[in-house]
Amino acid sequence: MYKTLGVIGGMGPEATCDLMRKIISLTAASCDQEHIHMIADVNTAIPDRTAAILHGGADPLPELVRSGRRLEAAGADVLVMPCNTAHYYHAALSEALDTPVLHMPRLTAAELRRAGVRRAAVLATDGTIQSGVYAGAFADEGVEPVYPDADGQAAVMRLIYDGVKARRVELRDVPVRPVLDGLRERGAEVCVLACTELPIAFEALGLADGCLDPTRVLALAAVRACGAPAAVDSPW
Amino acid sequence: MYKTLGVIGGMGPEATCDLMRKIISLTAASCDQEHIHMIADVNTAIPDRTAAILHGGADPLPELVRSGRRLEAAGADVLVMPCNTAHYYHAALSEALDTPVLHMPRLTAAELRRAGVRRAAVLATDGTIQSGVYAGAFADEGVEPVYPDADGQAAVMRLIYDGVKARRVELRDVPVRPVLDGLRERGAEVCVLACTELPIAFEALGLADGCLDPTRVLALAAVRACGAPAAVDSPW
Repeated sequence: MYKTLGVIGGMGPEATCDLMRKIISLTAASCDQEHIHMIADVNTAIPDRTAAILHGGADPLPELVRSGRRLEAAGADVLVMPCNTAHYYHAALSEALDTPVLHMPRLTAAELRRAGVRRAAVLATDGTIQSGVYAGAFADEGVEPVYPDADGQAAVMRLIYDGVKARRVELRDVPVRPVLDGLRERGAEVCVLACTELPIAFEALGLADGCLDPTRVLALAAVRACGAPAAVDSPW
Repeated sequence: MYKTLGVIGGMGPEATCDLMRKIISLTAASCDQEHIHMIADVNTAIPDRTAAILHGGADPLPELVRSGRRLEAAGADVLVMPCNTAHYYHAALSEALDTPVLHMPRLTAAELRRAGVRRAAVLATDGTIQSGVYAGAFADEGVEPVYPDADGQAAVMRLIYDGVKARRVELRDVPVRPVLDGLRERGAEVCVLACTELPIAFEALGLADGCLDPTRVLALAAVRACGAPAAVDSPW
């Protein structure tokens, strides 16, 4: 029997499903019973993370802890959190829980180092970038982050909030390709899709080549942490 | 605040994600916090339902009950079960729990009647068909079921088990289109994709037109049962 995985989800709900789908497809299994037991709490009462970090919005920590405890009570042995911005609260959350919480930005930075990447673009919410979650993880692994300029960052936020979360803007109407071109010109060898809504948008737009998907990195780490055989050797 | 939805999942894991995605896309919401709180138990310890019903395999009921109780303890107000075959155990499961479990085949049959459909093909596992789960639900609503012949049924089983669950056969290598043509010639006005793995395969194959997807019927019913605004009026 593998360990049971708890997913602190709802940030957003689609990103939770995206992680679950990636875990399923990265597990070497030929029938239902060979997959990992996952319990996902799509806790939509968790307040917006970027709003809390940058604009004094409601603190997400109490609901993150509530989800973590709910999953522990339901039997989770390992926890994951499919939201990059929420990792700003990783230390406080881990402190409040008895169960280890895998750290998506650190796993991603370690994967970049392993692949020999020295400079990587970080596409993320304003909250993730300004919280320094990726800057810290990159520094630990000797990877230099490259961020979009102000216009590029506004396009990334539009893709995340209006495109994926609210579905009020067509993804292809957000000018993302020039942002990627600009980052590559500034020396980024790889683009890290450091918001869990971005891999969904990038796959739909056919832009995922040359990008590293932290959701996929986390999914593969979760399969391994639960002791299940992985279907691939690498998240690339 | 909407009601909390509990998902008794893992039958299979992909079908659980498919239901969750459909619930998310059928909810009228413009930010994470406007979505339904869902808790999904991807309980891969639930034994194969068809094997139990037809071949004396291990009884799924104890694990179904365990999942239901786990979700009740975690706060679920309404339960769903994204597996058609598992509805063979619906009465016994409901008996063992305090929380209502929506009934996917009955909701689907009621939707057919509402749409004026008199004859509908049922594409399902051997277990679902021989358990009479759909036959009973159709009879209650005055809809006549049409089933594939033996070769057609073997193709459907291959698509479900080898195509979606085990991923050891390419979906397009399973000859499904002649099965659909044969069913339509025999008077089926609509094909009901009465195994939760089939909408996944049919969407990938571009065959979903003219089919009713019980996962989508269940998703819309779940949104309404939780009291959230639906993004559409009908599951067609």
